[in-house]
Amino acid sequence: MSGAVRAEDLGAFCAAVFAAAGVPARVATIVADSLVCADLRGVDSHGVLRLPIYLKRVAGKMIDVAAEPRVERDDGPTVRIDGGNNFGAYVGQKALEVALDRAGRHGVACVGVRASNHFGTAAYFAEQATAMGYAAIVMSNASQTMPPTGGLRPFIGTNPLAIAFPTREGAPFLLDMATSHVARGKILSAAKKGDTIPLGWAIDKAGRPTTDASAALDGAVLPVGGAKGSGLSMGIDILSGVLTGAGYGPHIRNMYDDWHAPQNVGHFFFVLDVRRFLPLAMFTERLADYIALLKAEPRADGFSEILYAGEHEHRLATARRAEGIVLPPALIEELSAIGRERGVAWPAPAAVGRSGKVAAEP
Amino acid sequence: MSGAVRAEDLGAFCAAVFAAAGVPARVATIVADSLVCADLRGVDSHGVLRLPIYLKRVAGKMIDVAAEPRVERDDGPTVRIDGGNNFGAYVGQKALEVALDRAGRHGVACVGVRASNHFGTAAYFAEQATAMGYAAIVMSNASQTMPPTGGLRPFIGTNPLAIAFPTREGAPFLLDMATSHVARGKILSAAKKGDTIPLGWAIDKAGRPTTDASAALDGAVLPVGGAKGSGLSMGIDILSGVLTGAGYGPHIRNMYDDWHAPQNVGHFFFVLDVRRFLPLAMFTERLADYIALLKAEPRADGFSEILYAGEHEHRLATARRAEGIVLPPALIEELSAIGRERGVAWPAPAAVGRSGKVAAEP
Repeated sequence: MSGAVRAEDLGAFCAAVFAAAGVPARVATIVADSLVCADLRGVDSHGVLRLPIYLKRVAGKMIDVAAEPRVERDDGPTVRIDGGNNFGAYVGQKALEVALDRAGRHGVACVGVRASNHFGTAAYFAEQATAMGYAAIVMSNASQTMPPTGGLRPFIGTNPLAIAFPTREGAPFLLDMATSHVARGKILSAAKKGDTIPLGWAIDKAGRPTTDASAALDGAVLPVGGAKGSGLSMGIDILSGVLTGAGYGPHIRNMYDDWHAPQNVGHFFFVLDVRRFLPLAMFTERLADYIALLKAEPRADGFSEILYAGEHEHRLATARRAEGIVLPPALIEELSAIGRERGVAWPAPAAVGRSGKVAAEP
Repeated sequence: MSGAVRAEDLGAFCAAVFAAAGVPARVATIVADSLVCADLRGVDSHGVLRLPIYLKRVAGKMIDVAAEPRVERDDGPTVRIDGGNNFGAYVGQKALEVALDRAGRHGVACVGVRASNHFGTAAYFAEQATAMGYAAIVMSNASQTMPPTGGLRPFIGTNPLAIAFPTREGAPFLLDMATSHVARGKILSAAKKGDTIPLGWAIDKAGRPTTDASAALDGAVLPVGGAKGSGLSMGIDILSGVLTGAGYGPHIRNMYDDWHAPQNVGHFFFVLDVRRFLPLAMFTERLADYIALLKAEPRADGFSEILYAGEHEHRLATARRAEGIVLPPALIEELSAIGRERGVAWPAPAAVGRSGKVAAEP
């Protein structure tokens, strides 16, 4: 027994737990899918470890699971959406669908979203756009975790930015980055595992550099590249929050600490139809040439291959789809217990057959 | 005598030198304005120190000063432009004007440009958009100066990214960053002044860290934040180059070293009408609140104020417009000599009057 669970089983477990907590199936399915997508891609920090806090937000009525995102303003290529404080992944999915529709009609679409929540991994949305032949830039603001350049305490979020393009074969080009040196979720993940973190990732609450993941969670992660990351994070906050009517800076409520009102997170979706510039086959041929040139470059010590953004995560996802997802024992225990409370059984471990494909154990 | 020259005199000098080299006035004026804009903002690396190489590119027939940028494909909000290998600043200006027009009509515009050249500072274009109440994202690819993550030698450019928003008063929010730790132009500037550079900015041609600016010019600058900057630079290359039909990676020719064909630089202009989301006054009021909250934050040691992106450069520009621009003596000598060859006199030094305004010396 490998201890791995099949992705689809893990998704079904999460969806059933959400459903037992009163989340409509159409919402539960998407949120579960988004969490499992992160675990498949190796972005554990945005995976099913978020299930407990998501459920707690629902129980605390900080997430309105019945709300349907509503188009507030519609000018064709530009759309503003009120997420109604439903799950970020669900609101984001609806916004993406609007953006894809509008990009198909107008060539480009910008959809701004307010009144949303933590939307998981931006790659979940960006990858869907590339699968339909679109380029996408996806961003979201987030509650305060980083000091700005010149500041001492958290003011900006580690606001994520995804930039994605369709490729001819294999992984789409998919950069999904936080504007911190590392994602806060990685520190959360380290703290959960009891690991230390490298110096330079974060400061503690007194502003001192720290290797203690728990101390870092009480302190602040640092922007990537100093003023560049600080400015980039603010730019994302302005597009996602100031422009859309969502919160920004201190007006975004912390998912873990603030139970007085919904988070009011904002997102910004930019979708571009590459066919308005070049035929899709010509675009992907040129991109394939670019990638081939990259891979033919001489390599630095310690690298057996040069990868483009998203390639590593795509390989992980392919492997994990075949072999199952291995979660830390403590997380399995936590999730199983949550399932038991709601009458949802933890999935049977996956067995890897000779084909390399996963089969449920007998 | 301060040794400073008035911005308008410096611009007129550059325009006259360009005109003497056969550049039409409509082109010369814009290119000169773009160079002086960089010097005003303190981005010396993109200022008039580029005049000599620009002239050399013209003389070598690598820039077609007579070409008018041509719209190749027009779908309303999305436009592809062939720059005809004219100056990047001129091609960029024409592309920006198209983008502003389309954003006004459709709410959002994406203009991709191929067959262009080094376009100077991205802030030149982004600032114009904010002055008209638009948000803008401006990017360009550039010839190879940085190794990608896992690579050993230059493959990607320090591809610049500007993100800008209109503000109620004072400086627009204007992040203008290279995707390197520092702009290659800053190393060029240090090499010209004989200064050393901090460790970590660049590697030499053998791949070793160096503090020698000249050695760094033969080597490579490093992407900001490792894989993040590497991926961001590639994303910009894909939008500016792969998508537009311009060069990308090794297909972009180096302005200094390659004299066989034009550079074939590509740009990408994204302009958004914030009024499609919120009334402009409401947007700028919310942004003013964001900025006020930022400035009220406790400050780190050594900071007397927390600045937002572009604020420092805007203050420099205001001061330099009043007091004149001070250039290094060696650069003045070089430019004066170029002027003399073409019958264009170096401007008289500016004198600062009691009002703080500049007057020409008697």
